[in-house]
Amino acid sequence: MKNPSAAIIIIGNEVLSGRTLDINTQHIAQKLAKHGIALKEVRVIPDDRQVIIDTINTVRNKYSYVFTTGGIGPTHDDITSEAVGACFNTELELNPEAYKLLREGYEARGEGLNPAREKMAHLPKGCQLIYNSVSIAPGFILGNVYVMAGVPHIMHVMLEYILPNLPKGQAVESKAIDIMLGESLIAAEFSDLQNKYPEVDMGSYPYEIEGKHCTSLVLRSNDYVKLDLSFKELELIIQQKLKAL
Amino acid sequence: MKNPSAAIIIIGNEVLSGRTLDINTQHIAQKLAKHGIALKEVRVIPDDRQVIIDTINTVRNKYSYVFTTGGIGPTHDDITSEAVGACFNTELELNPEAYKLLREGYEARGEGLNPAREKMAHLPKGCQLIYNSVSIAPGFILGNVYVMAGVPHIMHVMLEYILPNLPKGQAVESKAIDIMLGESLIAAEFSDLQNKYPEVDMGSYPYEIEGKHCTSLVLRSNDYVKLDLSFKELELIIQQKLKAL
Repeated sequence: MKNPSAAIIIIGNEVLSGRTLDINTQHIAQKLAKHGIALKEVRVIPDDRQVIIDTINTVRNKYSYVFTTGGIGPTHDDITSEAVGACFNTELELNPEAYKLLREGYEARGEGLNPAREKMAHLPKGCQLIYNSVSIAPGFILGNVYVMAGVPHIMHVMLEYILPNLPKGQAVESKAIDIMLGESLIAAEFSDLQNKYPEVDMGSYPYEIEGKHCTSLVLRSNDYVKLDLSFKELELIIQQKLKAL
Repeated sequence: MKNPSAAIIIIGNEVLSGRTLDINTQHIAQKLAKHGIALKEVRVIPDDRQVIIDTINTVRNKYSYVFTTGGIGPTHDDITSEAVGACFNTELELNPEAYKLLREGYEARGEGLNPAREKMAHLPKGCQLIYNSVSIAPGFILGNVYVMAGVPHIMHVMLEYILPNLPKGQAVESKAIDIMLGESLIAAEFSDLQNKYPEVDMGSYPYEIEGKHCTSLVLRSNDYVKLDLSFKELELIIQQKLKAL
């Protein structure tokens, strides 16, 4: 079964400057894998209108879904909504539902709107809202582009709102074995196993514990029969290898 | 002064699957900012030969430098060296210096080479080595492409080897103020300040402490006079704002 595909676009000078460690990619990637959506690429781009437009237009024509994070807040560097609208030749308008949500949200805190807060209700014409129980200001969906906040815990609730409405693919499952051997000592057998099971994605990830070489051998597939078969073979290979050493 | 530009290409299924949190981008980004190299984009791509070739060929023609991490180890999923060679119509050859380094390195551990380990000495013709005191297996430079390991502490020593040999741009410096106010309450004044100082990149980053809205206002520039001037103005703006509340 061929799963739908996706790209993530992280929009933010703060990631490119090194100020902020992007932890949104890993969260979205894990959720997509479970949902059976194949994440094909991630791009981190600056808060630059033309770069956002060019990037979104490239990836939205290549993949089933595009998920963006960042740039939908109240300040001058929040330009994602306008740029994504421009990708679809759509202008911003005051979205009545978003406006109502924001007004009521601020009123509940004993505060009112101001132009910066109202900016977050200016969304592309024809978009669908992504609700946000944390900070109220919504994300939005336009075509196959899902525009979310950059603040991780806000992005999380937006993604939880989005995913149940997307058709599920066949979830990718993984099985892993860790061995206390450098990866070069198992590389030949692991390569043979990969060739035997092309449906299973096999990765070898070295690390060290107290100066000792270790390796995680990770098998991933949405063909669960092949995943089980190949994993059992890998266990045998490792048993034989350890005996032979 | 216009700084040289760069892209980072993170090569690895393990990042796209959500298994691994990429921490290499932030490290490289911070080092590049200090070196005066402008990081323009980051892409995370799979261990797929054609995707690697297409991506590297796109970005190497767009930016002064391309830094890659991942895919230069001994296992079957390590295909970066061959793919980067293919970008330059160059085949792999047994690199005598890399071979010597690896042989001596394994001998020092009381071990020898095997085909998987020798694979790491097969590098594109005409490349220049990037030395690695941690695990010996070198990265390499081909044209404006700098190919490094994916394991963070190995990548770090490779980057330390590379950077002193690259011409320095004007380092980007940053100044930041944290305020205990939501960003929408300072957005108007902050936007005016950005318009007054286009040479300074101004970002607003909201966060919460115990349910209280806070904001980091970050100014970044390699024009230090404008950076200082705009920062002093920002301090005044905040003083006045806090008085007025």
